[in-house]
Formats: sequence, structure tokens, C-alpha cells
Amino acid sequence: MKILFIGDIVGSIGRDALESYLPRLKRKYAPDVVIANGENAAAGRGITKAIYQDLLFMGVDMVTMGNHTWDQKEIFDFIDEVDYLIRPANFSEEAPGRGMATVTKNGQTLSVINLHGRVFLPPHEDPFKTVDDLIEEAKAVSPLVFVDFHAEATSEKIAMGWHLDGRASVVVGTHTHVQTADARILPKGTAFISDVGMTGPYDEILGMTKESVLYRFKTNMPTRFEVPKKGRSVVSGFFTEVDDQTGKATSFERIYINDDYPFQS
Amino acid sequence: MKILFIGDIVGSIGRDALESYLPRLKRKYAPDVVIANGENAAAGRGITKAIYQDLLFMGVDMVTMGNHTWDQKEIFDFIDEVDYLIRPANFSEEAPGRGMATVTKNGQTLSVINLHGRVFLPPHEDPFKTVDDLIEEAKAVSPLVFVDFHAEATSEKIAMGWHLDGRASVVVGTHTHVQTADARILPKGTAFISDVGMTGPYDEILGMTKESVLYRFKTNMPTRFEVPKKGRSVVSGFFTEVDDQTGKATSFERIYINDDYPFQS
Amino acid sequence: MKILFIGDIVGSIGRDALESYLPRLKRKYAPDVVIANGENAAAGRGITKAIYQDLLFMGVDMVTMGNHTWDQKEIFDFIDEVDYLIRPANFSEEAPGRGMATVTKNGQTLSVINLHGRVFLPPHEDPFKTVDDLIEEAKAVSPLVFVDFHAEATSEKIAMGWHLDGRASVVVGTHTHVQTADARILPKGTAFISDVGMTGPYDEILGMTKESVLYRFKTNMPTRFEVPKKGRSVVSGFFTEVDDQTGKATSFERIYINDDYPFQS
Amino acid sequence: MKILFIGDIVGSIGRDALESYLPRLKRKYAPDVVIANGENAAAGRGITKAIYQDLLFMGVDMVTMGNHTWDQKEIFDFIDEVDYLIRPANFSEEAPGRGMATVTKNGQTLSVINLHGRVFLPPHEDPFKTVDDLIEEAKAVSPLVFVDFHAEATSEKIAMGWHLDGRASVVVGTHTHVQTADARILPKGTAFISDVGMTGPYDEILGMTKESVLYRFKTNMPTRFEVPKKGRSVVSGFFTEVDDQTGKATSFERIYINDDYPFQS
Ligand SMILES: [Fe+2]
Ligand SMILES: [Fe+2]
Ligand SMILES: [Fe+2]
Ligand SMILES: [Fe+2]
Ligand SMILES: [Fe+2]
Ligand SMILES: [Fe+2]
Ligand SMILES: [Fe+2]
Ligand SMILES: [Fe+2]
Repeated sequence: MKILFIGDIVGSIGRDALESYLPRLKRKYAPDVVIANGENAAAGRGITKAIYQDLLFMGVDMVTMGNHTWDQKEIFDFIDEVDYLIRPANFSEEAPGRGMATVTKNGQTLSVINLHGRVFLPPHEDPFKTVDDLIEEAKAVSPLVFVDFHAEATSEKIAMGWHLDGRASVVVGTHTHVQTADARILPKGTAFISDVGMTGPYDEILGMTKESVLYRFKTNMPTRFEVPKKGRSVVSGFFTEVDDQTGKATSFERIYINDDYPFQS
Repeated sequence: MKILFIGDIVGSIGRDALESYLPRLKRKYAPDVVIANGENAAAGRGITKAIYQDLLFMGVDMVTMGNHTWDQKEIFDFIDEVDYLIRPANFSEEAPGRGMATVTKNGQTLSVINLHGRVFLPPHEDPFKTVDDLIEEAKAVSPLVFVDFHAEATSEKIAMGWHLDGRASVVVGTHTHVQTADARILPKGTAFISDVGMTGPYDEILGMTKESVLYRFKTNMPTRFEVPKKGRSVVSGFFTEVDDQTGKATSFERIYINDDYPFQS
Repeated sequence: MKILFIGDIVGSIGRDALESYLPRLKRKYAPDVVIANGENAAAGRGITKAIYQDLLFMGVDMVTMGNHTWDQKEIFDFIDEVDYLIRPANFSEEAPGRGMATVTKNGQTLSVINLHGRVFLPPHEDPFKTVDDLIEEAKAVSPLVFVDFHAEATSEKIAMGWHLDGRASVVVGTHTHVQTADARILPKGTAFISDVGMTGPYDEILGMTKESVLYRFKTNMPTRFEVPKKGRSVVSGFFTEVDDQTGKATSFERIYINDDYPFQS
Repeated sequence: MKILFIGDIVGSIGRDALESYLPRLKRKYAPDVVIANGENAAAGRGITKAIYQDLLFMGVDMVTMGNHTWDQKEIFDFIDEVDYLIRPANFSEEAPGRGMATVTKNGQTLSVINLHGRVFLPPHEDPFKTVDDLIEEAKAVSPLVFVDFHAEATSEKIAMGWHLDGRASVVVGTHTHVQTADARILPKGTAFISDVGMTGPYDEILGMTKESVLYRFKTNMPTRFEVPKKGRSVVSGFFTEVDDQTGKATSFERIYINDDYPFQS
């Protein structure tokens, strides 16, 4: 199975960039499944039902989330009705939605798991323990398992990679909005990258206008971080090919597209 | 001026890897100046005088530090005597050592500044304000200014990049021990990368044995993180060419060497 | 000089309780000056001009603030115009308002200083350094100096007490909304209490409805913390008598009034 | 049942103060059970077997712990062998020791539960969920339940009080080393205090020499916090009387003894 993952889509610039590049990425990689992190899709804060539907319409097969899951209040109305939107599995038992879902393409079923880190972040349930249970559940369905670990600290993300090596097909990190250069296949066959990075404004700070973020850092005064409507974009992704029988990754490619790193077909 | 920067050297594996690759990197890039972050050089914790001298002997011209600056107590004995070792400039006024130093090669003088972040880290002096003063001081000497911003959060590091765009020649991040893929030259001429990554053990977690780190994450029990003595290595670096007249970066190259990304001469 | 300090006034329950008890407290203690922390006076979040004026009308002579200073946007319109409202002095240079002000009563002038802690809180300017400068400035006016240190950690607050012992007349902590029992006069004459506690709802959690706070703790889900409109109240304060010549505290009394600890005239 | 609790015993000054005052406190309150938090008993860091035995010899019936549980490595050797030492129940399943134990005196059995907070602290298991299970288990034995919640934030501690109101007989907070003045019996019969405070050096900062702590705050430089060997002491405790039939608290008294608040027999 060929899997294309798109990192945190931020605002309309991110959605537009995805719309523009997804056809080209599909031509280049011919992915069976496209997964995208949508936690910042609605103006940087959460996701709406309309945007979720737009993403599916563009060709996304599964949407993952993160700390911004609940930013748009309407998510409480539709998260339990939709099939291809998951939120971190180690959120509270009381949280609506679920943390794992499957997508079947060309006769192959992929389980997608979303997890949340705890370093510098709230004390959600233990992601290492949560994932052990889910992996087992997933393996009963198929050997193909994809994990989006939404976390801040490099230590926690790399630890999750080693924790799942040989058990998940792919483990990607998200949340920092900056792509890391450490993509590899771990010794037991799990493709790994600490962070895929974001898809959105290229000339700002994590997708938020740089003036507002700099003002905060320089003054510690309250500021509303805004997502700009105009400007250059970056598309960040991660492509993996996984062996359908063994569930092990056989190849990968980092995707990082912007004016400094133009798309090459 | 051609500048080669080497990311956090961790333990003996890191020092050995540097010794092995530095001659090859020098042949390939012909750097005028080599800078290396040495905060983890002594078994992962700080630096000793002997290791500092070893690094100079290997061909490093300037050593920068970070949160591990004071881990080896002997640093208090030599930091004020040596010429090519700096620690974050926004440490307390009471801290020994200094946060900026110059190195002159082939008639050109480069000022090197070391800064420390404050997000998820102790409340050191304001790095944005500190660097404004130092940049001015540095510019009185030469237009060539290199900044190692040792920080955790991607937001703070990218904010520093924009803050210094057009004023510093190069701004690199260190501390997360994972190289980022976002290297670029910002619009006003500053070469930037969020994090250069580390130089040390390749198959562990940030250079510490993965068993110990995983045990901590899974149990929250006390563990001593150890740097292994044996194993494969990674070398992480960043090369920049800077215009001597304008102090602006004209080209850059990410350096990331390990068994998955072999050195190419 | 006799000084009465009232801890963080939370919402309308807090304002009403103050209105009800301040006349009785004035009869009992005959304070020359009344200071109150008003950072939560407007429904738990900041202060408005109308509420500031109400507090003065009730008999408060000086209002101090804290991390909630900027919660009500209208404060930006009036903070630079009013005479008896201060915000933490170690906020950014760019912040409007000021961190020290004086109040003169019966021929005696008291300087009031507001400071903000940094443990578990944003990296404001160094409060220990900031206060050194302000104390000197204050001492040029009169020996009478009152400090409200708005901080979370007991270590930082007690450290400030010792730091100022013999230099400030009174150092009170605020912010945790729970009164501490450690009031004392330090060896060199500074009256000290780690936290004065809050003035507001008695049967909730720091003044916010207990259901909402418990829901957050049990689920880590987003919740809006609300200040209730009805319910029993607590009034928390600290009374000190200070020698006008030496500026040293000669006596103090904790004030903690609620149905379990009724007011005694 | 009459229960006397002693807050975090710090170092030899704390142990000596307890030895000196415990007989007097026993005469005054005639407690059936004495519980003491011993997480700082060994020079401020953890507890040894000898010190544990000393505490029992002095008349302590049960020792609770906190974040310093594992500071003395020898605890791993004896924690599973002793009957009256518990550590936070929401530590990892992998942690040795246990989080609840019973003590029977005069025919009545008291269950003592130790819990750890998560605000500003590591992500241990959910204390709210953990305690629900333990309370049920305890109630099968007897209606008498005592909880030591070792936590930093006032919000989390008060939340725990309300969470357990009517289900635990007594809920005390520990960890901040400063006694709070908010002791009360909650509406459904649970005696509560946010923090009992410490038993140890009186003229320092949380029991550590004030010079070392102040140096850290002023410089952010590394410092070893030491517990002094000499100096005045404070004893902090909380006495409760609980109805044996209902398990509800009927009266309480804060205990705070030092030169400013002398013991009154
Ligand atoms: Fe994101
Ligand atoms: Fe995120
Ligand atoms: Fe490092
Ligand atoms: Fe570091
Ligand atoms: Fe407050
Ligand atoms: Fe506050
Ligand atoms: Fe303690
Ligand atoms: Fe503690």
C-alpha cells in the first residue's frame, strides 16, 4: 500500500495549497490512501464540517487531529457521525469521537491511529499504553497501521518510534509545524519521521502572522495570533510504501514544497 | 566567508564521528571557520577543558553551549581563560564566561553569538533584547555574524530568525537534537535553520540510550539517562557561505550523515 | 501607618462581599490606607474602569493587578490615566501602566509596588532585580513600602520575602487564591505572608464554578471557567501596622472571613 | 477516631522537631492514629529505612510520600517489605510499593491513601480516577478514609477536596511546604485543608537554605539546595476527629508551631 500523509493544514492558505498540489502529488506518488492532519484547517483553530467535507472532496481519505481538536465548537455535533475523522486516542474516555479508524482501498485495509504527546502538554492518558492496545486491535484487521503522534518534544516522538518499531507500518510526528530531516526506516521496518511539518503560510511563524508572534515574544503581552489570508505557501508531507503482507515499510520520501524547494514532478 | 556549523556533539560517539568526518567535510566545503555546539560533549553533560582542547585540535574554531553549560563543574575553572568557548549570552550577569566572541580567519572576522530560549525553559534574560545589543556590537567589528540559538520551541526559533533577518548572517537553532528540513535564506539575507540536530549516537533517543528514555516515558520513574559508548553515529551540520562585504548569506547546505544518509564527497 | 490589604477580588460576589465587610474592617482596624488586588474583579477576568471607580468609591486607595491585568481590553484605554491602579512592575517596557505608585494619607506617603512571579508563569523581567531598583526609588520618598508579589510558587514568594526583609515594610503574595497561615514579621522587620487568598465565592474552586474546574481535571477537555453569580463568600485580607520612622512592621493580622470563620468585631 | 497528620518532615531539623513536639501533641490531642509525610525526611530527599523506623519509634503509625519518594535509592529495597509506608497510588503500575494501606487502632481501621497531583508535575495516572477505585476498596473495610494529596496547584487540591466530599473523612494537601489557612469541613462531611505545610527549618525557603534558593532565583545558575543542620524549626500538622460510624469529620484543628506561633498545651 502506498500512503501519502499531509502535515497540519493551516487555514485557507493551507487548504488552497493542498488543493493545488494534491493532484500533482497523486500523479507523482499514486498513493492508495491519503491522510491529512486537519487540526488547524479552520483559520488555524480546529476544523468545521464543511472543511472536513472539502478535504474529502479534494481526495483526502482520513483526517487526524491534535491539541486543536475542539477549537471549533461545531465539531461536537459531527465528530461522532463522520467516518474519516479521528482525534487523539489517548484523550479522555469522556471525549466524543474515536482515536482509530480504518480506510479500505483496492482491497487493502489500513488502520490509522492518532495519539497525543504529554511532554509540555496536558496529562492525557498514557500514549504508550493506549497505542499498545490499539495496535493489537488493528493487527486483528490487517498488518497495515499508520500512526500520527501529535507531540511537542523530540524525545517523546522518537521514543514512540522505537516503541512501535516493527509493530506499526508508519509513525509520523506532527504539531511543531516544522518538518524534520530525520526520516528513516527503523531496524524492524517502521517508517519514521519526528515531524512532518505544516501545510500553510510559508513566511510566517508556524502559520501565524510573524508580527503577532514576535510581539508576544518581545513583550509577553496578550496577542491574538492570526492566520494570514494571503502569502506564499508551504506543503509538507510524507510518502511511504508499505508491504501489504508484512506491514513493513519498504520506502519513504519526505515532501517539502515551497518557493525554496519547488515541486519536482 | 564559508562557515561550517556542527550540531550538539554528544559523548564519545559524537566526538569520534566528528573526528572521522571533519577532514572530509573540510575537503568538501573548505570552510574558513568551523563552529560546534559542545554542550553535550562530555558524556552528554557539558564539556571539560580536555574535550574543549580536543575539539580545537580537530579543527573546531569556536565552541557554543546551551542548557548543559555548567554540567561539568570544572568549566567554572577554565571558561574565563579560554578564547573560543561561549555560553548563551542571555544567561545571568553573574554567570562566568561570555556570550559572544570573534574568530578571525583569512583576514575576515566573524562574531559568534550564543543565545538561550525561554519557552519550556528557565526564565533567562530576554534573548530578543540581548541579541539586539550584541548585534550592534558585532557590526562595529564586521558584517559577519553567526548566531546559535539554543531553544526548544519551533515558534521561538523561527521568531528569532525573522527578528534577525538582515542583521545576522546565519541563525541556527540547536537543542532538540533533531535536524529540521526548513533551511532557507530569509528575504533579507539571513540563512536560517530551526535546528541543526545532533552529532552522536544514531540509534538512541537524542543520544541517550533508548531503553532508559522509554522506561521514563512508560513509568515516570527516576532513571539515569546514559550516553552509550558503542553504536552507529550521526553527524549533523549546516554549511553557509556569506558575502564578506554585505554579511548576507549567499548559499547553504544541510549536512546530515549516517547509514541512511551516507556522506557524499 | 496602618495598612489593610484585600486579596484578589473575584467577580460580583467578591465586590459585594468587600462592600459589605469593608466598613466593618475599617471600624475594626482603622487603616490609613486600603489596597486591594483587582485582577479578577470583572467576572474573574481583569478590571473595567467602572469597577475600578467602584472600588475607590468603596474606600480602596490603591488597586494592584496580576496575570489577568489585560483580560478586559478597555484597560488599555484608562490604565495610563488613573492614579491608583498599578500592574506588575516587571511586565515589559512596552506595557502601558506602571508598577509602582504612591498614596499619601494623614501626611504619610506609602509606595505600593506590584510584581509578577516567573515560576510556572511567563518569563517576565526579573522581579528580584526590578524590585531592587523600585525600592531604592521608593525609599527616596518615604520609608513606607508595600509589595504585592503575584506569583504561584511558594519558593519564589518566600524568596522574595527574604530578599526584601528590612527593605520593604510589607510583602504579601497573591495569585493562588488560597490564604496561607505563615504570616510573620521577618527578622529585619518586614511583615510577610505567602498568599493573602481571594475575596469572592467560597464554595467553588478559586472562585470559578467547581463543576467546570472538576470537569477539566477529569477530562482535559476544553471548558469555560465561569464565576458564579450567587453563593456564599469569603473575604481574605492582611492588616499591618508599620512604624512611620523606620518603615518596619510592628504588628499584623490575617483576615479570613466566611461562614466557617465569621467576622469578629 | 482522632487523627493527627504531620506535614512534610524535612531533614534532621524536622525529625528533631517532631521528636520534641509529638509527645506534647499526643497529650493535647490524644490521637488514635498519627500519619506523617516523610518524602523529605532524609536530608530533604526521600527516606531511608532507618529514618522510617525512627518515625515509627517516635509514634508515627503511617508514612506518606510524594515526588521525592525515590530520592534515596535504598527505598527500592524496603518499600515492599514495610507495612506502614505508602507512596502516591497514581504512580505507574511498574512502581514498587503501594498507594493505600490500613492502620487499626482501638478496634477501628483507617485506610490511608496517598495521591500525586499533575499540574506543574509529571503526567502520573489520573488521581481523580485512581482515588475513585481506592475509595471503594477502602469503604469495603471501614468508613474511615484519610487522603494525602501531594500536589502543587491550589486548583487541583481544592478540586480533589470537592471530588471526595462525603466519600473521604479527611483530605489534606501537601508539597508546597506552606500551610494554608483554609481548613474547613466541606458540606458533606470531609475535613479539608489545601496544604498542611512542612515540619523542618523555619528560617529558610521550603526547608532549603535561603541563600542557595535566592541565588538560583537571581541567577538561574545551577545550585545544590541544601537542608541546614541548625536553626529554628516549624511543626505543621492537622488534627481531625472523625465519626467512626459515618466516617464524617466532626472537628479539626490546624497545628502550626514555631517561635511566632508557640505551642499552646
Ligand atoms: Fe498544528
Ligand atoms: Fe498541534
Ligand atoms: Fe544538546
Ligand atoms: Fe540543550
Ligand atoms: Fe487572582
Ligand atoms: Fe493571578
Ligand atoms: Fe515535600
Ligand atoms: Fe513534594
